[in-house]
Amino acid sequence: MKIVMIGEAATHQETLARDLTSPATFITLPREAHASAAWDERIEGADVLVAMRLQRSTQAPRVRLLQVPGAGLDGIDFRVLAADCRVCNVFEHEIPMAEYALACLLDHEVRLGEAQAAFASERWTNAYLGRQPRGELQGRTLAILGFGRIGQAVAQRARAFGMRILAITRSARDGQVPSGADAALAPEALNEALGLADYVVLACPLDETTRGCFGAAQFAAMRPEAVLLNLARAAVVEEDALYQALADRRIAKAYLDVWYRYPNGEGDLVAPARHRFEELPNAVCTPHVSGWTHGLFARRYAFIAANIERLRRGETLLNQVHGPR
Amino acid sequence: MKIVMIGEAATHQETLARDLTSPATFITLPREAHASAAWDERIEGADVLVAMRLQRSTQAPRVRLLQVPGAGLDGIDFRVLAADCRVCNVFEHEIPMAEYALACLLDHEVRLGEAQAAFASERWTNAYLGRQPRGELQGRTLAILGFGRIGQAVAQRARAFGMRILAITRSARDGQVPSGADAALAPEALNEALGLADYVVLACPLDETTRGCFGAAQFAAMRPEAVLLNLARAAVVEEDALYQALADRRIAKAYLDVWYRYPNGEGDLVAPARHRFEELPNAVCTPHVSGWTHGLFARRYAFIAANIERLRRGETLLNQVHGPR
Repeated sequence: MKIVMIGEAATHQETLARDLTSPATFITLPREAHASAAWDERIEGADVLVAMRLQRSTQAPRVRLLQVPGAGLDGIDFRVLAADCRVCNVFEHEIPMAEYALACLLDHEVRLGEAQAAFASERWTNAYLGRQPRGELQGRTLAILGFGRIGQAVAQRARAFGMRILAITRSARDGQVPSGADAALAPEALNEALGLADYVVLACPLDETTRGCFGAAQFAAMRPEAVLLNLARAAVVEEDALYQALADRRIAKAYLDVWYRYPNGEGDLVAPARHRFEELPNAVCTPHVSGWTHGLFARRYAFIAANIERLRRGETLLNQVHGPR
Repeated sequence: MKIVMIGEAATHQETLARDLTSPATFITLPREAHASAAWDERIEGADVLVAMRLQRSTQAPRVRLLQVPGAGLDGIDFRVLAADCRVCNVFEHEIPMAEYALACLLDHEVRLGEAQAAFASERWTNAYLGRQPRGELQGRTLAILGFGRIGQAVAQRARAFGMRILAITRSARDGQVPSGADAALAPEALNEALGLADYVVLACPLDETTRGCFGAAQFAAMRPEAVLLNLARAAVVEEDALYQALADRRIAKAYLDVWYRYPNGEGDLVAPARHRFEELPNAVCTPHVSGWTHGLFARRYAFIAANIERLRRGETLLNQVHGPR
């Protein structure tokens, strides 16, 4: 087995080697190989290419399996792949992302950082006597746009806090309420759903139906005290409308972990957005860390190793999203 | 009905008046009336005294019902009460306290504040490429000392995160595992339980069996990467042993919301502890805010109003903990 790993994936080569039950030859390439043909000779003919992105102007190098080491497929240009190339993705990020989501919701209600900042031995009497009551998650409505693995994992945890879960999902078109939700509305009723929500979590894939689906009209439909959390892709939300809604305090706060532009390597000094969101007092900006845990990588590379063993044995691959069956 | 309210309770006089269904006369007294007899003439003969604490050197003024507006009874000197005085307490704080507890656990794993501090537009490339994986709550063991209302509310939420719940409770003496826990050990096996835990939450009442029950031997029994969260009373944990365990990094971190000394009024400038815990990098100190929510007061004063109506109608009181039945 010849296995090529690009960029961040290449940093997990040892984990993958440990998880495999048969020998393999590894080639690790820098992040730039995602979008440049300069390393294609080394990739050509590999059994497995592990890469989060693959962009080429003409044809991509030929591999049997392109194993994306994540869920999102928006970095792959499927048009340049050989017809017999199979593409698989992998999940496991719903656990850390749901933990991140609840950390944000609880950050907004519990305000642990503020409470910590108010504490000092010499100010104890005033801090204690001057405590101001905060809010609770209990009884609040959480609208989740996209009720897939991430949305469901968020819902499962939020329900334990006594939150009401409103799923915004296509399956609501035929009147169904998915398991794990208290109510459901179809994407066509997005604005109606937003008017009911204290918290709005975006957890949908980025595709042509969701790109820019959250704009000025959606911010206008939200309650002024409501909070937005984007766990999906930045491009689901219109950049200028988001900035304006926060700057005008049209909504109370946004937790933003996904961005409009990503660097393609160490020297690529791009900005994450056209606006400096981090300077807004009601934007909590983090550098795409929601799914980034040791547990994520342990589970993902165990899955990828199992998939490579399946390829070796000629068995059906897990999570195949493209290519011949 | 003559109703006297002392200190913080007095700030909720309007809420209580609104919740009552029959007329009442209110007297509100300053916080100092908790421990001073100077206002006793005004309290004497009241139907209801709403006060979190009551300390007197000889006899307390005579009231029919001492309604404590919280759960903890350690502020009441029962020896100075008249024999026919009924004492009731009230809960409802388990909801905000459990939300606070999970906010702490998630703060430790997700480190939202650190991630936010790492984000700036001009450092985006480095922040994104340099992300370090964090931990997860999923799969961790949470030991809860005291499996009453608070402990169970914490457990219910923590379980939704895939945590393993180890209850430390007297009911484990006969081999029972309480509902909501995955395993249970008796308080005699505290040190054994501590060795199994990634997180230790203290949620027991302060009494003669729990005062100082957490000392140097317990910190020695904890794992070095484990985290302590005290939601009970400060005096459950030996002050010097706690400071030393944190300063020596015997444990990873402590979230401390309860303190060794409380002010008795605005001019009473006491220190919360003998040590400046807030200067330790691994202590997160907050000014007893875990239960302090709008929802708490709304639920508690609705309960207290219902109890006062029961007193008026001569019915059995709710949550009576002392006095004639």
